[in-house]
Amino acid sequence: MKQLAYYDGAFLPLDTYAVHLEDRGFQFGDGVFETIRVYGGKCFALEEHLERYRRSMRELAIPITDADAELVGVFYELIEKAEIADGVIYFQLTRGTSPRSYLPPKINLPHLSVVIRDVPIHTDWQENGIRAALVEDIRWLRCDVLSLNLLGSVLAADQARKAGAKAAIFCRKDGDVVTEGHNANFFLVKDGVLWTHPADNLILNGVTRALIREKLAPALNLTVVEKKFSPDFVLKAEEAFLTSTADEIVPVTGLDRQPIGDGQPGETTRRLLAAYHDLVKAGVDMDEED
Amino acid sequence: MKQLAYYDGAFLPLDTYAVHLEDRGFQFGDGVFETIRVYGGKCFALEEHLERYRRSMRELAIPITDADAELVGVFYELIEKAEIADGVIYFQLTRGTSPRSYLPPKINLPHLSVVIRDVPIHTDWQENGIRAALVEDIRWLRCDVLSLNLLGSVLAADQARKAGAKAAIFCRKDGDVVTEGHNANFFLVKDGVLWTHPADNLILNGVTRALIREKLAPALNLTVVEKKFSPDFVLKAEEAFLTSTADEIVPVTGLDRQPIGDGQPGETTRRLLAAYHDLVKAGVDMDEED
Repeated sequence: MKQLAYYDGAFLPLDTYAVHLEDRGFQFGDGVFETIRVYGGKCFALEEHLERYRRSMRELAIPITDADAELVGVFYELIEKAEIADGVIYFQLTRGTSPRSYLPPKINLPHLSVVIRDVPIHTDWQENGIRAALVEDIRWLRCDVLSLNLLGSVLAADQARKAGAKAAIFCRKDGDVVTEGHNANFFLVKDGVLWTHPADNLILNGVTRALIREKLAPALNLTVVEKKFSPDFVLKAEEAFLTSTADEIVPVTGLDRQPIGDGQPGETTRRLLAAYHDLVKAGVDMDEED
Repeated sequence: MKQLAYYDGAFLPLDTYAVHLEDRGFQFGDGVFETIRVYGGKCFALEEHLERYRRSMRELAIPITDADAELVGVFYELIEKAEIADGVIYFQLTRGTSPRSYLPPKINLPHLSVVIRDVPIHTDWQENGIRAALVEDIRWLRCDVLSLNLLGSVLAADQARKAGAKAAIFCRKDGDVVTEGHNANFFLVKDGVLWTHPADNLILNGVTRALIREKLAPALNLTVVEKKFSPDFVLKAEEAFLTSTADEIVPVTGLDRQPIGDGQPGETTRRLLAAYHDLVKAGVDMDEED
């Protein structure tokens, strides 16, 4: 597996000791992150990810001390140095290093780290679908911020694995509402309409989710509603799928021991995935013509 | 300020680069911690902290790969090397280093880091009391685990500071219930009885809190009830205080712009603090006789 890292100005191998003990990322999870997919040597949906990254920083009042162009420069330097045409760029920013205190330091320099790795897409999941496990959503009430406080998702992923499932789907006990996957947004298809949880504080406003809502669904004449629904409603759906930067669109064919629809990847999901791949291809082609 | 650190087997200055970029503590806040006060060169309530530390590890399914005696050995070596007789030992354990994935690695070695620092007690807060700010409790639903997912408390501390207060007191919107402080447990005195939130998943089962409930209150003929109460109830109390390892017992004399009781540290709080200091002194003396 090819991989390379960048930390505060330097390119370095991933197994280097690079972080201070009192980096607030290490002691409080006090930071934000983003994940970008690289296709054919190009960063996909770059602007959308950078915009959300800046929003996360603002929501946590982490000072913005660099320009988007600097970041993008680092991404493309990593792509080149690591010789990775298809993979994932993970970048995170912590509030910086200071003697441990809950109170954020008034003056501080954030620390940026970036990792590129040629992580493949789960094409088998895309073709055959996956089974998901319903897990209680115990996360904090700012899931709209992509922060480093991710234990709720870590425990949920572990719980899903123990149940023999590939993903966790969260349900808030308070209201019996399905929110999202442990690292992906969740959609279902009911009577031909796409349903997904509103983009409020309980879910991440996913980039892939937004592309479906704003581009792919309209192009395929599909209606999207952003409404809350229960696990029972999921079991009555014709189809369901997860959306994420890393794995694009993945059909969910079962929840716990019960099938969703006929237990096979659905036609609407397949059409959306094909349209997504077209969008990716158009993006790469467009950039190549630059 | 005196300080010294320890990381995975070595004593080192605090400004050393010691942590990997893909330590799960740095990317997920995937780890646990404890804080112990050192008085006269002795660790106070050591057993209670170690017991809770092991519980936190078990709750997050982090494998236990060392013995308490090893940890205690490191603590006392730090006390000696740093020449700190009175201060705070902070130690944390992360799930270890592995390529980034929500799924915890099946085989992994946790990383231990320990920091000692001669942090003084806020004796001025103990004498004069502090004003607190009421902040919505948006934290996850496993506040009983002392994990590294601490952004909720970081943001609350910042919110309190902006309101000119020294501490945040959390209130769950769901139920209008006061839970605890941003880094301390919360008690109030009403009609001579001590009230505090039950030790469930919404608060940390604090060591100082337990000492009050099990030792100090009975010795002073005070009744303690563990019940839920609202912010309104706090304003009707005669006294209120916060309890923590770092600052022991701190009177809370006001909440937002309103006084609690007569707006001065209360008599019951003072008696408890005196009894706590006696307990600490007895602990140090006892150890000296060993």
